[in-house]
Order: sequence, then structure tokens, then C-alpha cells
Amino acid sequence: MNIPYYRRMLADRVRVRAFRRAIRAAVRPGDVVVEVGTGLGTYSFFAAQAGARRVYAIEADPEVCRLAESLAEQNGLADRIRFLRGYSTDVELPERADLAIFEDYTSFFFSSGLPGLLRDIRERHLKGSGRLLPRGVDLFLAPAEDPRIYRQLDLLRGQRDRLFGLDFSETRRLVMNHPVGTEAAERHLLASPVRCARISLGNGRGFGFAFAGRSRVRRDGLLHGLLGWMELELAPGVRLSCSPRRPPTVWGQNFYPFAEPLRVRRGQRVGVTMELIFPKGVRRYLYRWTVSAGAEYREGNTFAGVPFTEQSLSSES
Amino acid sequence: MNIPYYRRMLADRVRVRAFRRAIRAAVRPGDVVVEVGTGLGTYSFFAAQAGARRVYAIEADPEVCRLAESLAEQNGLADRIRFLRGYSTDVELPERADLAIFEDYTSFFFSSGLPGLLRDIRERHLKGSGRLLPRGVDLFLAPAEDPRIYRQLDLLRGQRDRLFGLDFSETRRLVMNHPVGTEAAERHLLASPVRCARISLGNGRGFGFAFAGRSRVRRDGLLHGLLGWMELELAPGVRLSCSPRRPPTVWGQNFYPFAEPLRVRRGQRVGVTMELIFPKGVRRYLYRWTVSAGAEYREGNTFAGVPFTEQSLSSES
Repeated sequence: MNIPYYRRMLADRVRVRAFRRAIRAAVRPGDVVVEVGTGLGTYSFFAAQAGARRVYAIEADPEVCRLAESLAEQNGLADRIRFLRGYSTDVELPERADLAIFEDYTSFFFSSGLPGLLRDIRERHLKGSGRLLPRGVDLFLAPAEDPRIYRQLDLLRGQRDRLFGLDFSETRRLVMNHPVGTEAAERHLLASPVRCARISLGNGRGFGFAFAGRSRVRRDGLLHGLLGWMELELAPGVRLSCSPRRPPTVWGQNFYPFAEPLRVRRGQRVGVTMELIFPKGVRRYLYRWTVSAGAEYREGNTFAGVPFTEQSLSSES
Repeated sequence: MNIPYYRRMLADRVRVRAFRRAIRAAVRPGDVVVEVGTGLGTYSFFAAQAGARRVYAIEADPEVCRLAESLAEQNGLADRIRFLRGYSTDVELPERADLAIFEDYTSFFFSSGLPGLLRDIRERHLKGSGRLLPRGVDLFLAPAEDPRIYRQLDLLRGQRDRLFGLDFSETRRLVMNHPVGTEAAERHLLASPVRCARISLGNGRGFGFAFAGRSRVRRDGLLHGLLGWMELELAPGVRLSCSPRRPPTVWGQNFYPFAEPLRVRRGQRVGVTMELIFPKGVRRYLYRWTVSAGAEYREGNTFAGVPFTEQSLSSES
């Protein structure tokens, strides 16, 4: 059990407040609620306080599950919350729920197992009329200048990726095609953000998308990569943004680097694309991101060496 | 494959240089070398350069193993290095080695599986006369003042560990009994470091120890916890220290907090103890750390709720 991690999650007031507001808005008195990945149980406690008749709190880590149970007892909520140890895909609920809460996302929302996990929640844990919290997510991209994070990726730059006469440049190629979590700020944005996807969690559709859009450069600078972040629609009217312009959350943003930075000028138009696919037979989802400005073009992708065909593009999971 | 992590390891010049010096000192021409957890293969490359006849490089992550193999080819070393995918406890080497390299340690050296892993290396992978690199480790402790890391642990202090009327103070008790990785500096040391253990990796003995010693406070301050770090004896005459007084390495230090800080004065004598046990039937090793100054006493331990008996104390794995 990584207790410092759970404490940091708990201390993220922006996140906890938004989820509490959404849970109060979404839970109707008498509802059955399921929370997948309850951690310390915080949202399940909110659901019980909001009037749920019964909360099923699923948690795979047995130690965390025991701790959450003990917190429920200390807070006088143990009679309405039932803790279930295991993965939600293995757990059988005694009854179907009106509302499912799930928030185990990455900084750019996606993880490899997510489509199947959400499908299983809808098909086995929720009533036909059951709702998800969050209901959906919007994804944003912005060209960014971030010398600090770029320097961290390009650690062996001074040595041209050589160490005692050995050539490690292959590792640079990989790290420059690998998104990495960051905590960006307004000052890192070189151009206005664009919304690249709007995803509803309720409809069971796949998550892949292909986006192409344009943005306007707001100051001269060195474009090191794209910043990507999410804005969760938690409940009708309750949103939580992870934009670098908003108060920080535990999620921060993802940084999608380019192997060579691109010099841009104020007023210039830049083209931005992002493709995301969940191909069959590949253990992970794949990204490709590009930027173009005038005659210059940069690309990054996570699928170096993986076949990227029309067929895999059309087989979103 | 966490490629940014492997790049950070690679860019730690203090660590890489010390290991290279030790490998050059330890490898005799014609030696058979095994490296357990080779990662990008760096140390195996050094061993081949140092004249090893054959290097067996074991790596559990198939992607990292493939990358290391491709780096060996690019660097013209593929003929002398054989990569083996898997855990070293599952792998059968075609021949026994003269030297085993292993460096997958935590900031305070220990991890739960380490005693068994090293025993298996000695019993199955090494010749009777075979040597380990590192050969041993010294462990150090120092009373520390570190308001930044303490604030990170005590995140909900302003709210007395309450959130919207819910009591989460049980999580504070746990986090204050949980060592956490840090990067400390000279200024954090409130008193001189003491050596609390000297461990030889060659003799097959268990790792548990009980230490009690004294140190002298060097300035008035607030004692938040103990700092613990290691100094590896890589080869005869080649040492690598992770002291906060020395250039930083990827390992940093461990911070062992106390739930309430202790005010100390310059010139005061403080008692420091540290016990570490690997009890049978418990999945992890356990720590207890204490400090005393005058009539004041503080304790932290990782085994809240785990039986801690004479019997478990004597059953070091």
C-alpha cells in the first residue's frame, strides 16, 4: 500500500471538492452505488452521506481495502457501505447499481484496460438505466515550450547520448516518442488549446479518435512538444478541468515531445494532429502526434516497430 | 517499459562511473560474468569491455531486454553478451559465473525479496569462488530536520485530517510510520551520521539487524525524522556513497518520520536505534526506528498491527 500516494490524492482539494459536488448532484435517495477502485473510500463515504441506500466499494489492494473499511467504521458509515476485495471485472455484485463511480485515469484519460473495464461496469454492474460518474471527458491539446521537462528527457544531450564510448542514442529516440506526465502552467502554452476529442462514457463506443486542427501562436518560442489534458464532466453541470490555467490536480498534464524542437513566431498558424488507436493484438493503445508550422513538420508516436495499418486503425477496442 | 526511468539511471554519472571503475577492477580477462536485472545493459557492456569471455545479462522486462540486445549489437558487443529474458530465480545459466553484478536496491538497500534473490545467485549462478559486485554495504542514519518533506507527509494538518466532516486521521498514523524516499542535503542533518550496519553480501547470512547508538546535535532544530542511506562497497577500494553530503545519485536517501517532531538543542546527545527484521510468514521486512533526547522519546515502525515477537525477531530470512 502506497500510503503517501493515497494521502496526496486525499489532499487534492480541487479534485475532492468537484467529485463531492458531483456525487451530491448524482446520488438520489435510495440509490445503489458502486465505486470501482475505492482507495481510501472517500467517494463511497460521500455517496453514503448523499443518501445512497447501499454502496458497493470495490478495491483490489487488500491492505487499502482493510484501511477503507476501518475508516468507514470510524465514521459511522459501515452499515451502508459493503467493501469487496478484488478487481471489478472479477467481482459479482449482489444487485445492480443505479450509479457507478470510477476515476482511475491517467493524465490524458486513457489506459490500455480502460475500454474493457468500463464496458464490464456497464454490462454487469449497472442497471440498464444506470449512470456513470464521470459521464464523459473532453481532451485538449496545446503546443508547449517547456525547457525543464525537455532537458529531463534529453539528459545525455551534452554527450550526444554516448557514455564511455558506448552509443545509447536508441534510448533517446524512444524517450522522444514517449508521453510523460508533467505539471505545466499557463506560461508553457505557446498557442491556444484546441479540443481534440469529446468522449461520452455512457454509450459503449470505442475510444480511438483521429483529430486535426489549427491554433495561433501567441508568442515567439521553441515548440518542444504538445501538452494534453482532460476535462471531466462529472455530472450534469459539474466539470473538473486539468488545464494548466486552472488550479492543479493530482493528474496534471501529459507532455508529448518532439525529437527536435520547432521555432515558432507570434501570429503564426500551427497545425496539430493527434491519433489514438486501440489495435487488436497489441497490448497497449498507441498514439501519434504531429505539429506543422509553415514548411516545418514534427512527429512523435508510441508505436515504433508496431505495424500500423488500415486494419489496426479500424479495430478500435 | 519506463524509458524515462532508464534514461535517468543512465544519466546518473556518479553511479555509472563508480560501477564502471568497480567492474574494471573486478573483471579478470576470461571471466564469466552474470548481470541480474541488466536494464539497458550498461554494466554488461562494461564487463565485456573489461575483458569478460562471456556475459549473461538477465532481464525480466521483455521490451527492455530487446532494447538492451539492440544496443549490444549497435555497439559491437553482441558476440560476447547473451541476453536471457526472465527473473534470475527462474533462469538456468549454461555455466556458472566468476562474478555476479546486481544493483536493484532501494534507497536503504533492502527489499523484501532481496535475501532470497542473493542466496539464489550465490547457490545457482556463481562458482564456489564466485564474487558479488557490490561486495557489501554500510548503512548510515542521521537525525534530520526537513520541513518540506514533513509537510508533504502531513498534508491535511491544517484540517486535522478531516475532510467534509469525515475523519481520516488513521491515514496520518500510517504515513508517519512509513519510510519515504527523499533527496536530502547537508543542511538537513541535525547531528552526525552513525553507521548502523555493515553487511557483507558474500556470506549468505540474513540481513536483519538491531542497532543502538548515540550522536551529538550540531544546531538547534526540530527533529522530524531519521535519514537513512547506504554506502556500497562495489569492489575492493571502490565505494559509492549515497550520503546527503556527497553528489546525488538516483538512490537518494530514505526518510523515517516521527508522528510528532522533537525539539533539540546544540550540543545535546541523542540516542538513535534502528531494528530491521525479515520475519517468517510476513510478506515484507519490518522496520522500527526511535530517537531519544533527554526525557523525550519518539518511535516509528512499519509493522502496525503485525505481531512483533521474540520468535519473529529471531527468524531472519
